[in-house]
Amino acid sequence: MKTTLLPLLMLCAMHLCAQESILGFSDAAAKKQKELEKEFETQLNKQNLDDWMKLMVAEPHWVGTEYGKHNVDWMEKQFKSWGYKTKVDEYEILFPYPKLRLLEMTAPEKYTAKLEAVPVEGDPYTAQGEKLLPSYNAFSTDGDVEAELVFVNYGIPSDYEELEKLGIDVKGKIVIAKYYGSWRGIKPKLAAEKGAIGCIIYSDPEDDGYYQGDVYPKGPYKNKTGVQRGSVMDMPTYPGDVLTPGYAATKNAERLAREDAKTITEIPVLPISYEDAEPLLKALEGTPAPASWRGALPITYKIGPGPAKVHLKLEFDWQMVPAYDLTATLKGSEYPDEWIVRGNHHDAWVHGASDPVSGMVALMEEARVVAKLAKEGKGPKRTIVYCAWDAEEPGLIGSTEWVEDHMDELKQKAVAYINTDGNSRGFLGVGGSHTLEAMVSQVADDVMDPQTGVSVKERRIAAQMTRDGDDAFTISALGSGSDYTPFIQHTGIASLNLGYGGEGSGGEYHTIYDTYPHYTRFKDPGFEYGAALANTAGRLTLRLANAEVLPFELKGWFTTVNGYLDEIMKNLENTRKEVKTHNMMVEKGYYKLAEDPKKNIKAPEKKAEIPFINFSPLQNEMTALKESIDAFAKVNQVQLSTSQKERLNGMLRELEQQLITEEGLPRRPWFKHQLYAPGFYTGYGVKTLPGVREAIEQENWDEAKGQIDILANTLSSFNDYVQKMIDVTK
Amino acid sequence: MKTTLLPLLMLCAMHLCAQESILGFSDAAAKKQKELEKEFETQLNKQNLDDWMKLMVAEPHWVGTEYGKHNVDWMEKQFKSWGYKTKVDEYEILFPYPKLRLLEMTAPEKYTAKLEAVPVEGDPYTAQGEKLLPSYNAFSTDGDVEAELVFVNYGIPSDYEELEKLGIDVKGKIVIAKYYGSWRGIKPKLAAEKGAIGCIIYSDPEDDGYYQGDVYPKGPYKNKTGVQRGSVMDMPTYPGDVLTPGYAATKNAERLAREDAKTITEIPVLPISYEDAEPLLKALEGTPAPASWRGALPITYKIGPGPAKVHLKLEFDWQMVPAYDLTATLKGSEYPDEWIVRGNHHDAWVHGASDPVSGMVALMEEARVVAKLAKEGKGPKRTIVYCAWDAEEPGLIGSTEWVEDHMDELKQKAVAYINTDGNSRGFLGVGGSHTLEAMVSQVADDVMDPQTGVSVKERRIAAQMTRDGDDAFTISALGSGSDYTPFIQHTGIASLNLGYGGEGSGGEYHTIYDTYPHYTRFKDPGFEYGAALANTAGRLTLRLANAEVLPFELKGWFTTVNGYLDEIMKNLENTRKEVKTHNMMVEKGYYKLAEDPKKNIKAPEKKAEIPFINFSPLQNEMTALKESIDAFAKVNQVQLSTSQKERLNGMLRELEQQLITEEGLPRRPWFKHQLYAPGFYTGYGVKTLPGVREAIEQENWDEAKGQIDILANTLSSFNDYVQKMIDVTK
Repeated sequence: MKTTLLPLLMLCAMHLCAQESILGFSDAAAKKQKELEKEFETQLNKQNLDDWMKLMVAEPHWVGTEYGKHNVDWMEKQFKSWGYKTKVDEYEILFPYPKLRLLEMTAPEKYTAKLEAVPVEGDPYTAQGEKLLPSYNAFSTDGDVEAELVFVNYGIPSDYEELEKLGIDVKGKIVIAKYYGSWRGIKPKLAAEKGAIGCIIYSDPEDDGYYQGDVYPKGPYKNKTGVQRGSVMDMPTYPGDVLTPGYAATKNAERLAREDAKTITEIPVLPISYEDAEPLLKALEGTPAPASWRGALPITYKIGPGPAKVHLKLEFDWQMVPAYDLTATLKGSEYPDEWIVRGNHHDAWVHGASDPVSGMVALMEEARVVAKLAKEGKGPKRTIVYCAWDAEEPGLIGSTEWVEDHMDELKQKAVAYINTDGNSRGFLGVGGSHTLEAMVSQVADDVMDPQTGVSVKERRIAAQMTRDGDDAFTISALGSGSDYTPFIQHTGIASLNLGYGGEGSGGEYHTIYDTYPHYTRFKDPGFEYGAALANTAGRLTLRLANAEVLPFELKGWFTTVNGYLDEIMKNLENTRKEVKTHNMMVEKGYYKLAEDPKKNIKAPEKKAEIPFINFSPLQNEMTALKESIDAFAKVNQVQLSTSQKERLNGMLRELEQQLITEEGLPRRPWFKHQLYAPGFYTGYGVKTLPGVREAIEQENWDEAKGQIDILANTLSSFNDYVQKMIDVTK
Repeated sequence: MKTTLLPLLMLCAMHLCAQESILGFSDAAAKKQKELEKEFETQLNKQNLDDWMKLMVAEPHWVGTEYGKHNVDWMEKQFKSWGYKTKVDEYEILFPYPKLRLLEMTAPEKYTAKLEAVPVEGDPYTAQGEKLLPSYNAFSTDGDVEAELVFVNYGIPSDYEELEKLGIDVKGKIVIAKYYGSWRGIKPKLAAEKGAIGCIIYSDPEDDGYYQGDVYPKGPYKNKTGVQRGSVMDMPTYPGDVLTPGYAATKNAERLAREDAKTITEIPVLPISYEDAEPLLKALEGTPAPASWRGALPITYKIGPGPAKVHLKLEFDWQMVPAYDLTATLKGSEYPDEWIVRGNHHDAWVHGASDPVSGMVALMEEARVVAKLAKEGKGPKRTIVYCAWDAEEPGLIGSTEWVEDHMDELKQKAVAYINTDGNSRGFLGVGGSHTLEAMVSQVADDVMDPQTGVSVKERRIAAQMTRDGDDAFTISALGSGSDYTPFIQHTGIASLNLGYGGEGSGGEYHTIYDTYPHYTRFKDPGFEYGAALANTAGRLTLRLANAEVLPFELKGWFTTVNGYLDEIMKNLENTRKEVKTHNMMVEKGYYKLAEDPKKNIKAPEKKAEIPFINFSPLQNEMTALKESIDAFAKVNQVQLSTSQKERLNGMLRELEQQLITEEGLPRRPWFKHQLYAPGFYTGYGVKTLPGVREAIEQENWDEAKGQIDILANTLSSFNDYVQKMIDVTK
């Protein structure tokens, strides 16, 4: 059993989690809340999810489309009919539409990429022709380049290290990278840093095609013509409208000139199918690709450069389009100025049955029942704000602009943000602020898996146990990839992101095949897990809305954060040892001797020794913080007086905000959270304690020292804040 | 640094391995021996290897062919011309020639396998048409079967465990298995045990084709038409002529009826190319193959059974053919009745440039120079017997019959057997009796790598260090796969098997592409490593031939054998823990919960608990043995009197024979060595302490107890023998 479960166990030992107890509720209130949640669950209607999805995915609806606006209007009508007060915020954002896409191999033979997925039998949506958005990477720059091709595996930092070992330079070349291994935007960003002049991204059938299983329409996986669209905007620098960094893209806002926008790629980039990639890869010669780089095409994977030469020409129509964010508010009966914000995006690359409509319709069904219960006198104590974001796909634009627009109000009122996005069959996955982990764990006990009849927590732990013996229910740290980012990382609002998955795999993501037939055949037939998602997110929302004391928990949080610090220190020690061993092996000539002399591979050189870093400011702050947190945990919160509870709730609401700094992270001030950020070179993947961790990973020792001090200061203020919360309870 | 190097280091500490010292030699003798070896090395002529290979591989020369006899006659002439006394022993053996090979898919569509590798440009040998031996598996039974097909991955025990989990039975089916993962003969043996009625083996391009690199003739790897021939005789039961188990297949020997021969397969088996396998595998439906089962064909790998149905019809011409073993003897000047036996086989499946001629010509060059030095008065003190074995490919037949024929003389006279087979560029690999490890390590110090100029030991350690940080030079234990088997495992003669490899990979093994052009382009251009092999094997041979005291070393041997025992005990403990965890997970329903309920996968059942086994008889014997070995190691052997040395040498010569038992291993009495055997279900792969280890692996606890007693008795007798050697030195 992992230590992350201990806080919960200790609560149990303190008789706070008997069968009916809930974090933040007295026993009596917990009983009532459980009844409410049961009633909520009972009224969820799977048929609604089915009907609504069919309606919303009838046509493609990316930002700026007519059908997108149609969906917003229709949703607004629904929310209104249920009793919500609705509002549509409109922003004017830059959106590139692909006007010209040309990719051709010019040597050693001629091949022109088709760049088009084909309609398939049994899925009329895929035959909508002109209506379908052509495949491209949004926020690629315009460009017209021709050069030799180099295969760079996933195009992530470790791949360029390998290329360096092999003596291969991508300067002046066009790189071809596989999808996966990182968020896609990292590939052109890193390629440009290394001097490449163009970037092609393709889906290898090993990761995303016939190697995985039968392809569409026979099975769910990517057929040879499918292409994953997606944004390559440099979101780890800042997400949202590229022309209005850090402030809302309202009609009259001041805007950057497009050429000054830092988050448009420096080099042209285009995604292609594996059918189009095969002739290009097959024409490469030179160094064989390392075994771990090879995919499932029936070729000998090689790196090049050349003799394959390609010509890539891209032109975009840089449109200004309206993005519509719909919010639907149900006022809280006791604390109307405390908001639980609950969102999902509504825009899609094409039809988006899975991404995002499967999550959107679950949110709507949740909202319908919550409002119905409110009409019956069982409304929430706090205000609930349901949100349907536009323009998530091109770069979290709708949510980012809305958060930037409502920043002050959110900082005052928002208790938490709960996000969903695509959903499918399988296991509950949750990422988020670890202050909310204990609450999530309790909810996961109460939601039954629709197919096995045990709790979704028990089912997930069963899967973990068969995989690696891990019996702890934890939530992961959030990187980026959906609309929680402006809430947690920019504003410091405690956030969660959740969904079911693992048994609805497929290759439809961001393709013309993410349709109603595909979704209902493969992803979640009968919308069983759509209802489970509404059930889970609804319970979380209602629990936050009705808690006597906001259910933030710090002992588990401490264990997790302390684990991050330990990990960083251990990684540094391991790197130090590795560098020592590496240098010894270079000195003794082992690398050179181990290589085939006929291959002329450059033997690696000695690396700079890793210095010792002073972590004591962090260790001292963590030690002090632990004492405060232990003291705070001893408080029987639900037994406090009403006014104490109110003051405590006011502080708990702003607890997560104590973890952000105004100046933000180095070179990306938009990202202000000191515990969680998307990695600058991973994109979606999280970096915890990002200032310190990334400085160490980049071997920038001066910056690491500075970041340790900044983080130590943050933890020190956080400690003061916890002390103040203790004072409130005295 | 691993403990296996310790004995050597301790010798160093005892001033026995100063720069010029050699195990078994006084300082003066060592100096002379080193000069001799240097002279030997200097006279090795790479051009001879090239010329002789061209000659021997001009035509296919499997057992019974005219060209095979031509090679024997030619080699005999060479040996004679150098001064050897030659002899050709002829045996009459059963050899199946493929008369009829039919493989067709009869449903869901028709496909008839081509079963023919194509000639390639630039390699006239591949165009010899009728002269090439058709691709087949020797000692498959005749058969005519038709059934649904099932894909069984490598067809090894763990694969059938996986199939059982998936609820798939091969009873009455035809299985298709990939080459590799085990010796090929295990595949039909296990398939038959599981109830299959036919077996197809193919080379997947992931293991052996374009996934590895460019295919022949562009590169060295297997093209889509290449087929690996090979024997499927049940060699782990007994190798050699199937009709004369345990005795020589002389002209008038009594023979089993063919239907009584236990080592012919029970079901028909045929190897095919990946071109022929693709349509069959593509036509399979049903359960998706687990990720680790999938290969590099551009298909979705599935298991079936069916709907693919195949018809396999095989008829063999069961010929009695002559096998010719050539021996060439150079009498020892001081101890003519002590033999160093040095062998390589001469038969090939087709041309066999790599396998076996690359090793055969290195042996011949070695023999030429040894004889030349002898003529100059620098002949060996002990007798050297060079051997060229016939019929190795169909089942180690030539060597086995010869050893069975000369058993008594060998037991009296043989000091050691040194085997080589195919060779290519790269790193020195040695397997053998661990009594010889220290000597091999010293020789590896003295042989320089032809391309880097450091010793072959240093180069190999460099490769190990870059791979996994292992800095010990060790020899591996011998399983099976070449002609050392009858010597070590049947007769108890200390043996070695050596070769260079790792930088001459290719897909030519047992195909029509193992030719002179392929070999000289890809495997060992310039025969640099052929000469290194002659140098290494020659030094080993000369050192054994001239040593004052035979260079057997027991402290390293003890560490290794004790390691085997530790490993068996630890494995059992781990299995016990795994079974406990497994049963807990079954009880808690974790497996069932972790599976997709829509897949109807059978949840695993509880396993029988693992009992505790009494290992103390072995532990006690090992403790006693350690004392004796430590005492023996303290003797300064080269300082003994001449008569003591002679008596000690007599005992050392028969030392390894103390490790065999007359009754042999359970169910396979031909295998008599108590430390080393090919695994009953791995084939080539060794099982150390095989009686005990395999009983435990098969969870046959009664047998395990019996085998522990037998092994303990063997170790006890061995201990007595060591004590007697100590007595000799007093």
